[in-house]
Amino acid sequence: MLIPVKFRTKEDMSMSAQFDEIIRELKTLDLKNMYGKDFFLTWDKTGQELAGVFAVADALRDLRERNISTRLFDSGLGISLFRDNSTRTRFSFASACNLLGLEVQDLDEGKSQIAHGETVRETANMISFMADVIGIRDDMYIGKGHTYMKEVADAVEQGHRDGVLEQRPTLVNLQCDIDHPTQCMADALHLIHHFGGVDKLRGKKIAMTWAYSPSYGKPLSVPQGVIGLMTRFGMNVVLAHPEGYEVMPEVEEIARQNAQKSGGTFTRTNSMDEAFQDADIVYPKSWAPFAAMEKRTDLYGRGDSEGIKALEKELLAQNALHTDWECTESRMATTHGGKALYLHCLPADITGVSCQQGEVAATVFDRYRDDLYKEASYKPYIIAAMILLAQCENPVETLQRFQQEARPRRRK
Amino acid sequence: MLIPVKFRTKEDMSMSAQFDEIIRELKTLDLKNMYGKDFFLTWDKTGQELAGVFAVADALRDLRERNISTRLFDSGLGISLFRDNSTRTRFSFASACNLLGLEVQDLDEGKSQIAHGETVRETANMISFMADVIGIRDDMYIGKGHTYMKEVADAVEQGHRDGVLEQRPTLVNLQCDIDHPTQCMADALHLIHHFGGVDKLRGKKIAMTWAYSPSYGKPLSVPQGVIGLMTRFGMNVVLAHPEGYEVMPEVEEIARQNAQKSGGTFTRTNSMDEAFQDADIVYPKSWAPFAAMEKRTDLYGRGDSEGIKALEKELLAQNALHTDWECTESRMATTHGGKALYLHCLPADITGVSCQQGEVAATVFDRYRDDLYKEASYKPYIIAAMILLAQCENPVETLQRFQQEARPRRRK
Amino acid sequence: MLIPVKFRTKEDMSMSAQFDEIIRELKTLDLKNMYGKDFFLTWDKTGQELAGVFAVADALRDLRERNISTRLFDSGLGISLFRDNSTRTRFSFASACNLLGLEVQDLDEGKSQIAHGETVRETANMISFMADVIGIRDDMYIGKGHTYMKEVADAVEQGHRDGVLEQRPTLVNLQCDIDHPTQCMADALHLIHHFGGVDKLRGKKIAMTWAYSPSYGKPLSVPQGVIGLMTRFGMNVVLAHPEGYEVMPEVEEIARQNAQKSGGTFTRTNSMDEAFQDADIVYPKSWAPFAAMEKRTDLYGRGDSEGIKALEKELLAQNALHTDWECTESRMATTHGGKALYLHCLPADITGVSCQQGEVAATVFDRYRDDLYKEASYKPYIIAAMILLAQCENPVETLQRFQQEARPRRRK
Repeated sequence: MLIPVKFRTKEDMSMSAQFDEIIRELKTLDLKNMYGKDFFLTWDKTGQELAGVFAVADALRDLRERNISTRLFDSGLGISLFRDNSTRTRFSFASACNLLGLEVQDLDEGKSQIAHGETVRETANMISFMADVIGIRDDMYIGKGHTYMKEVADAVEQGHRDGVLEQRPTLVNLQCDIDHPTQCMADALHLIHHFGGVDKLRGKKIAMTWAYSPSYGKPLSVPQGVIGLMTRFGMNVVLAHPEGYEVMPEVEEIARQNAQKSGGTFTRTNSMDEAFQDADIVYPKSWAPFAAMEKRTDLYGRGDSEGIKALEKELLAQNALHTDWECTESRMATTHGGKALYLHCLPADITGVSCQQGEVAATVFDRYRDDLYKEASYKPYIIAAMILLAQCENPVETLQRFQQEARPRRRK
Repeated sequence: MLIPVKFRTKEDMSMSAQFDEIIRELKTLDLKNMYGKDFFLTWDKTGQELAGVFAVADALRDLRERNISTRLFDSGLGISLFRDNSTRTRFSFASACNLLGLEVQDLDEGKSQIAHGETVRETANMISFMADVIGIRDDMYIGKGHTYMKEVADAVEQGHRDGVLEQRPTLVNLQCDIDHPTQCMADALHLIHHFGGVDKLRGKKIAMTWAYSPSYGKPLSVPQGVIGLMTRFGMNVVLAHPEGYEVMPEVEEIARQNAQKSGGTFTRTNSMDEAFQDADIVYPKSWAPFAAMEKRTDLYGRGDSEGIKALEKELLAQNALHTDWECTESRMATTHGGKALYLHCLPADITGVSCQQGEVAATVFDRYRDDLYKEASYKPYIIAAMILLAQCENPVETLQRFQQEARPRRRK
Repeated sequence: MLIPVKFRTKEDMSMSAQFDEIIRELKTLDLKNMYGKDFFLTWDKTGQELAGVFAVADALRDLRERNISTRLFDSGLGISLFRDNSTRTRFSFASACNLLGLEVQDLDEGKSQIAHGETVRETANMISFMADVIGIRDDMYIGKGHTYMKEVADAVEQGHRDGVLEQRPTLVNLQCDIDHPTQCMADALHLIHHFGGVDKLRGKKIAMTWAYSPSYGKPLSVPQGVIGLMTRFGMNVVLAHPEGYEVMPEVEEIARQNAQKSGGTFTRTNSMDEAFQDADIVYPKSWAPFAAMEKRTDLYGRGDSEGIKALEKELLAQNALHTDWECTESRMATTHGGKALYLHCLPADITGVSCQQGEVAATVFDRYRDDLYKEASYKPYIIAAMILLAQCENPVETLQRFQQEARPRRRK
């Protein structure tokens, strides 16, 4: 993978030079298998394909910064289905769709007849007659979200094959029980720009570590997505958490294999201090234990609300044993040069700000606020790149045509 | 009425030949009275006007399949107002608006000040300053939905005449207490394509029959819309239901008159078996008795929640007397060649799938799944055609211009 | 300020002549400080800037009436955040955004993670990556709404400065605790057209008067906005209300100063009759006492629901002492020639229609219905003008380019 694009500053950037560089890189990548395909998990994709997503995201941003419209579609819908609250991902998806010319139409399960015992297959077809993209967030129940997305994708694939749907909508995973690819790819693109290229990530130590939060049942998709993705770039990835906060073993296995192939490492520890030691990047974030999430899925399936309440109480008590898992100034001081880059998918539980005791000290968070916002700013472009690569047989030509036509996004 | 368009297969279709054929047909139709008019009930429209809707729907689909944009509007709003839950119709309306370049804006009565005693006339004008279309679903209360839509249409008509509204938004009935024209027109277009032309429908037997459902109070607009529309094509339309499940007598009268004019028949029976016998098409679907719906409207009007609960119980008990009204394999075997086309507006209550005992056997439903999805796929185009015919003084020129300009819907 | 545009009738208007006149006027105005700026309060803006908003609103309407598209944006989001119910303002904002090519994306605080203790600064940035406009309605709590809007504006300003946001979204106040500029500017534009030019407003008497309503806690932003704006045109502005219904003293002070500068007057009275006497314009509307709103804000802050209930009861009782503050026919008879123009932001509490006893007699309201609808019809254009002036460095060239290109809004 080769992403030589430097972090752009307004002063020195020669826009078209940068765009040309991206195009040159894109031409070297084999992206033909992305055409017509969904984006479920980063480890389904080749290294060249991930590089393609980064490059297209950069190209779209470059074009937008030069006020060049990237409307791929003159009409078409982008369907969103959120089975969990969301601000960032909702707006990122809406932004990505809008950037490409698609109108977002939210499938609100409360307002629809889905509750009336309808099959996934039927609904998926019924909403997709003019849908070019379907974005789904379904991260609450272990073993459910990814499976549901696959079902939706299979349904529209068959609908398209059978002539029911004239076009095959692309499914984009906006967070499932296993992976959060749009978040982690945005995190990675932030790292690439921060460190000056994907090759600069080689040998860097990244600590994906659990942190204390007074809230309950946060999904595992971010830590899993991070160890499943960052191990592809030759990094030394450390997963740290208290005992009992294990993530899915299958994903750990993937991380292990990735590290081996990429020339990096993947290690686990039960010490936050050990993880922070000499780290170049830290990603301290709370999550629920996999076993507890499995238990909860089971309780929900049985409709055992008493059991759910009891589990919640138990988990909060368990969390409370680990309030010392905080990203403090003293821990930050032990990182590489005392200056590790702090990552978070936001919103963070900030000690003394959003809660009494949380994931990160207020001074640490404040120091990295701008970086965190920049990290988040890549997500709309990552999503748009995933869509474009699934929808365009020749993405290089598509991007070049945008530049040639130079239709202004905002007229003067 | 003349719709010779064959059912298209990807293999043999010569797109422009088909489009030319549609245009030729459109030129023979008198559609001038559709310009600036709303679409409330199919029996308000002439046979040529219905043929016009079918033809424009086919033309729009043909253009879209050739990736030709049909954006009629560069900006403008399509207002939707749903007074009942909806997935299909909601997405069909959104798709139709989007196809023509209108942005959907949902009027959510819960979020608005409508509850504060505002008149229909005022609200209709306040939301319509930049509205080109208003789509309303209001099917729950007998004597209310159609009346409400008329009020809205009158309000914007007057607003336009008085110079308050610069344009006159088109009202499209997305289901009222009397008719469900977008559904029934989509059903009919499905039949036209399935049987190879509207002239092929002549003499066909269609059984619009009640079926058992464990749910309560389903609207009458589908059976009413079906008997009111299918009787226009020279078909032998049979309405079947248990005693007590009568539909509105006015609509039956319309069906009778239509049949007489078109050379078909309209008959009623209290036997599902009789209706299925030698039928070419069956449409088994649950609905509430008209008299019960009237009673419910009255109870709601008086705010009598005890009375509503009692009525619900009574109706479910009444339904339960007719669980044998199911579209079973053995009944399907008695249809013409054992191969009647099964129709449903979806979602269906499928025995053993979405409920213990329902409208249709699972094996029957499964066999027709693809056909059902295709049936549904016509709805966005039917809605778009209704809008286009109300908004364009010369629809033939409009469609031809789309083809000439050939602006891609999705760029390569 | 100079707005000689006559009230247009369909018969005699020569569209391009009118447009040319607007352009000539716009060229005389100094609008350069509007570029890149938000719209919080009318008294933040110079007289020329207000004239600029009126002129651009008229130009946009003229272009739309000639079916000329005014899509400024090929893509982009308009974010709306409503902290109070809204139909009119919601649809006005959506209409304005759509007219300029922006897709509305509603920030629904219920569906988002904002409740989870997130800072305003973070949310503002997270939703704004592709936002060109943010419209906020936050009018319920004294001392809160305006402050919140400022915080959002500061956040996106800093985000833009720091390179997080590529563009700086324009903030438009859709109603705060202090002012309701989009409403009052629409009211004023209605007056300008009604009386035949802004210069014709000089010396006119306008009565902004409290009126009885059986509801509780209506915001003060309309009366405050009206006295803060109408005093700029040399009018004789009378604020009338029962004792105890005072508005914010700071705004009264602004009204006083405005009147002095503009050569008009600003007076207060506790008599509705006195206010109506010889008035050219009357604006009778209910609002809550400032002191009570302050108290309520405080009670909400402390979460004192018992206190809130008690206050509500107390306020309704206080209102009930003043049921004679109604815009009756006999009061209307005392206005200038018995024909004062009646204004209202809608919906009004109409005696015998929307409530037993309300702000206005049914016959009065009915007589002015058309005028009221026209008054409301200016709001989408006012909002669009505010956006255009903030987004376009040279609004004259922008408008002229729209006319030259003459892209049809609705194709034939």
